[in-house]
Amino acid sequence: MNDITLLRTVEQVRKLVDRWRTAGMRIGLVPTMGALHQGHLSLVSIAIGEADRVIVSIFVNPAQFGSGEDLSSYPSTFDEDLMKLDEAGAHCLFFPSVDEIYPFGFSTSVHVSGLTENLCGKYRPGHFDGVATVCAILFGIVRPDIAFFGEKDAQQLAVIRRMVDDLNLGVLVHAGETIREPDGLAMSSRNSYLNPEERKQSAAISRSFSRAAELVAEGERNAGRICGAVREVIGNAPLATIQYLELVDPDTLKHVEKLKAPALLAIAVYFGHTRLIDNIVLKP
Amino acid sequence: MNDITLLRTVEQVRKLVDRWRTAGMRIGLVPTMGALHQGHLSLVSIAIGEADRVIVSIFVNPAQFGSGEDLSSYPSTFDEDLMKLDEAGAHCLFFPSVDEIYPFGFSTSVHVSGLTENLCGKYRPGHFDGVATVCAILFGIVRPDIAFFGEKDAQQLAVIRRMVDDLNLGVLVHAGETIREPDGLAMSSRNSYLNPEERKQSAAISRSFSRAAELVAEGERNAGRICGAVREVIGNAPLATIQYLELVDPDTLKHVEKLKAPALLAIAVYFGHTRLIDNIVLKP
Repeated sequence: MNDITLLRTVEQVRKLVDRWRTAGMRIGLVPTMGALHQGHLSLVSIAIGEADRVIVSIFVNPAQFGSGEDLSSYPSTFDEDLMKLDEAGAHCLFFPSVDEIYPFGFSTSVHVSGLTENLCGKYRPGHFDGVATVCAILFGIVRPDIAFFGEKDAQQLAVIRRMVDDLNLGVLVHAGETIREPDGLAMSSRNSYLNPEERKQSAAISRSFSRAAELVAEGERNAGRICGAVREVIGNAPLATIQYLELVDPDTLKHVEKLKAPALLAIAVYFGHTRLIDNIVLKP
Repeated sequence: MNDITLLRTVEQVRKLVDRWRTAGMRIGLVPTMGALHQGHLSLVSIAIGEADRVIVSIFVNPAQFGSGEDLSSYPSTFDEDLMKLDEAGAHCLFFPSVDEIYPFGFSTSVHVSGLTENLCGKYRPGHFDGVATVCAILFGIVRPDIAFFGEKDAQQLAVIRRMVDDLNLGVLVHAGETIREPDGLAMSSRNSYLNPEERKQSAAISRSFSRAAELVAEGERNAGRICGAVREVIGNAPLATIQYLELVDPDTLKHVEKLKAPALLAIAVYFGHTRLIDNIVLKP
């Protein structure tokens, strides 16, 4: 163990970060739901480069799970997480209880309209309200100078940026690039749900993205044809079922018909019961 | 003129308050919609006692007006307001445009459930979302140590306290007591809408409150009978139409049947087209 500080209450975190702030330190926050992988750790590493003190939160936020979703089975690897964060050089782990974040009488929610209506928002009603609200709470507790989020959750990133701008939260939002397994699968805590055959076939997502990028490089600009090629590659993985696949503007998340500026190709795919999301920016 | 600073942009306010904060000053914010009266000025005066620097905002917030409400006719007395604030010793007046608070693409709203469902919330759908959202924005811009609100708007006060607690905004909410005209009418910018006869009759509200307090002092604890007596007094003002009248818990705003602890008697009354609200805390 190095010297990571484990805190469980809002008051403890407040005290610690107030001390840091008074000392003129720049504070970085990496909000996570635990079950940490290389994607999270790359954010911590970036955070250590950008901030004087790095606080990582682990909170499996009930408000962002729908009733039929995997809240109760969400992977938890707390001891390993603590060790990894300590090794990575994070200064503090905030690991609050649900009651600490949502105490008795809690009644407030933050909603971002527009951005939350398509892609994941269409299939996970209320999810982004849960995300926006918990991030507002965490930003309120920590008041970080910078907060770090992964690009894999592109819609989440867009929603948080919008909320931070709209509410003048004064937090710089830093996006870390998606970290991938050797076969291209984007790192995700939910990858642990995949059985070996599903895991093998899930590499089709990133293969389909390579095919899309190739087509664009060859001059293809039509969203329908690009998505058609992606569907074809993923169709070769018999365990895959695409939930959505869309080319959208990276900021507004609005549908793009023709690739004229960099656009986000975003996908959600089921492999068995496991839902994976991924995205790539395509540049004309 | 003393030396009040008039600022119109978020960036200017940010710079000024950052400077104050770096100098270790305690910052007070008094959010208003202008058309300032003695109620506002008493908040400014309290703020000057509690904070090193006082910033007053004047922003007629479109988001808190319903479609049939008085947004377009809301009184505006900017020059007088500026003079009054300067005389009162406020350090800064923030007078943003609508676009400065809600720039192009703005998409975020803050909702407080429960507290917003009865009293004014029942008759002004969306009003408290508008209030909570604009206060979150102003708190984001100014990051005040303390913010000052009048007790006349009791439901607003409860909603803002709840939001500040829930989102850990780190703002102390200070309530200033309702300031009244010599005949008891609570000060309100909307009093200027009243014609002389309405104005005269509007004193019935505060007379009815005196009657309620009298009854409670005599031992009455039944909400129905207390409200009945209030209705009787106000019934003597022929231009008055009660919109709601309810005895509620001061924190949860839930209906109270029997007065066992201090409870809020809250009322909305129309005099002609003018809607007035008022409240009194009744203590058993």
